[in-house]
Amino acid sequence: MTEPGKDRGRTTVGVDVGGTKIAAGLVSGDGTLLETLVRPTPAAEGPSAVLDAIAAAVRELGGRERASGLGIGTGGVVDRDRGVVLSANDLLPGWAGTRLADELRARLDLPVTADNDANVFALAEQTFGAGAGASSALYVSVGTGIGGGLAVGGRLLRGAHWTAGEFGHIAVPEAAGRPCNCGRTGHLEAVASGPAIAARFAELTGGGRGGDLREVAELAASGNAAHAHEARTALAEGAGALGRALGGLVNTVDPERVVIGGGVASIGTPFWEPLTEAFAAELLPQPSGLRPLPAKLGPRAAVIGAAALLLEER
Amino acid sequence: MTEPGKDRGRTTVGVDVGGTKIAAGLVSGDGTLLETLVRPTPAAEGPSAVLDAIAAAVRELGGRERASGLGIGTGGVVDRDRGVVLSANDLLPGWAGTRLADELRARLDLPVTADNDANVFALAEQTFGAGAGASSALYVSVGTGIGGGLAVGGRLLRGAHWTAGEFGHIAVPEAAGRPCNCGRTGHLEAVASGPAIAARFAELTGGGRGGDLREVAELAASGNAAHAHEARTALAEGAGALGRALGGLVNTVDPERVVIGGGVASIGTPFWEPLTEAFAAELLPQPSGLRPLPAKLGPRAAVIGAAALLLEER
Repeated sequence: MTEPGKDRGRTTVGVDVGGTKIAAGLVSGDGTLLETLVRPTPAAEGPSAVLDAIAAAVRELGGRERASGLGIGTGGVVDRDRGVVLSANDLLPGWAGTRLADELRARLDLPVTADNDANVFALAEQTFGAGAGASSALYVSVGTGIGGGLAVGGRLLRGAHWTAGEFGHIAVPEAAGRPCNCGRTGHLEAVASGPAIAARFAELTGGGRGGDLREVAELAASGNAAHAHEARTALAEGAGALGRALGGLVNTVDPERVVIGGGVASIGTPFWEPLTEAFAAELLPQPSGLRPLPAKLGPRAAVIGAAALLLEER
Repeated sequence: MTEPGKDRGRTTVGVDVGGTKIAAGLVSGDGTLLETLVRPTPAAEGPSAVLDAIAAAVRELGGRERASGLGIGTGGVVDRDRGVVLSANDLLPGWAGTRLADELRARLDLPVTADNDANVFALAEQTFGAGAGASSALYVSVGTGIGGGLAVGGRLLRGAHWTAGEFGHIAVPEAAGRPCNCGRTGHLEAVASGPAIAARFAELTGGGRGGDLREVAELAASGNAAHAHEARTALAEGAGALGRALGGLVNTVDPERVVIGGGVASIGTPFWEPLTEAFAAELLPQPSGLRPLPAKLGPRAAVIGAAALLLEER
């Protein structure tokens, strides 16, 4: 019988904990996702049940025998040093205060580390994806919310209160008056996130069509179908607001690269084209050659990035 | 006869080169401004004449005998490593391309280093002012334009193209449609800089009063004088836009401190109060205790910061 944690090289387990799903993956030292499984999150049963479900998923993957450590990415603000959830939203009731690293170490007898899910997306792209080799970069994930990370000097910036990279909560002209998930109004997330784009489409079509982003994406790609124009408009408005805001951030931070991922970015041309155009129009003369790059690692970037937490030099 | 550059300890010369004035100061190793002089900038005569005037000011201060080096802060984008002006505006015609460090080294036989004037403001506050001891901070200077710097891990971030800290050129709702000095519209600088506030005051008073910021500041402090209300409104609009934008940047970068200086910030309460209020309202819950701090070093911060370039560890 081998002792857990020995002779497993640089293979680690990454887990992306969301409000509805737990995605776990076995990740090799070069960032390859070797094996993956997805289980429901028992969010309503409280933090202990969620921790048990994470531990069960890691065991099912063979993590205790095959991996040298476990990295967790989760919604909310996470203290990266201690692996503690500092605050979280209603998708994971009671999650704030959870000592993620300690609790999972006790359940699994593995080294455990944890961070915010947008940070692990950024870390994945920085370590193995579109940001590899760049000393500085903005990483932006556009999905249900807008988040990301900022790398400077080859390291991901965590901030003084572990909230660095909250790109969704800057005031933008295009969102004036629109309510944001954070309780304020007029933020980027209120105009460029997936639900915001879907809601805008419903508004443009007089509410006759539901707020489903997949439908908006399909219509936008469909040429002359009914409401194709409104779908393209909704996407272009959100993408334009994002591009302009990112251009302003680039003027402020002057990174080497800008990398954009997440479900909304994967829609392609109807989102990407107005985004790039608004971004380029906003740049000051000096960094004007810069263009945003698509993220490379796809929907499992958070799993890969959670695993990459164990490789991060700090 | 002593050889220039020897036995002068950590006293250095800092020079702030603007479109109309050259301010030079002898600065001790602890940031004390020992002696200062101000001379006109012969901008219209071209770069060589400006370089000669800088060298003359340094000689007049006794810099060659008393200082161990010379630091320059100037408008425009400056390559900090090579001391070369990469781009500049019309206030200093032909300034782009000037090899500041080489040219002044040749004229003065002293070590010379150079950077952008907003960066040296930030460096001064970081080294000797309101940012001293902070690992990360946003430094913002609000005057004729809006610029500043961002410190991370105890170092001032220069960016991939030497433009980091251009806080003036982010799109803000309050500036929608207003022309910015950069040629675009809707930027923070177009609503919160000194000239923008003065222009807004002229607009509010029907153009009957001129666009002088000092007059706006005096009226705003004057209780019930005619146009005192419009003066306070113009200041509050600019300050509110700045506070909201800085709140959003804090959500994005999560610094330990925010430090605000420059001529407009020195107006005091009628600017500072709406600024602080808008800033606080914008913060996410996590860093919500943070409040902006006034810069400490006053109008000569750029001279002190230019001198501090020679002390900077890189």
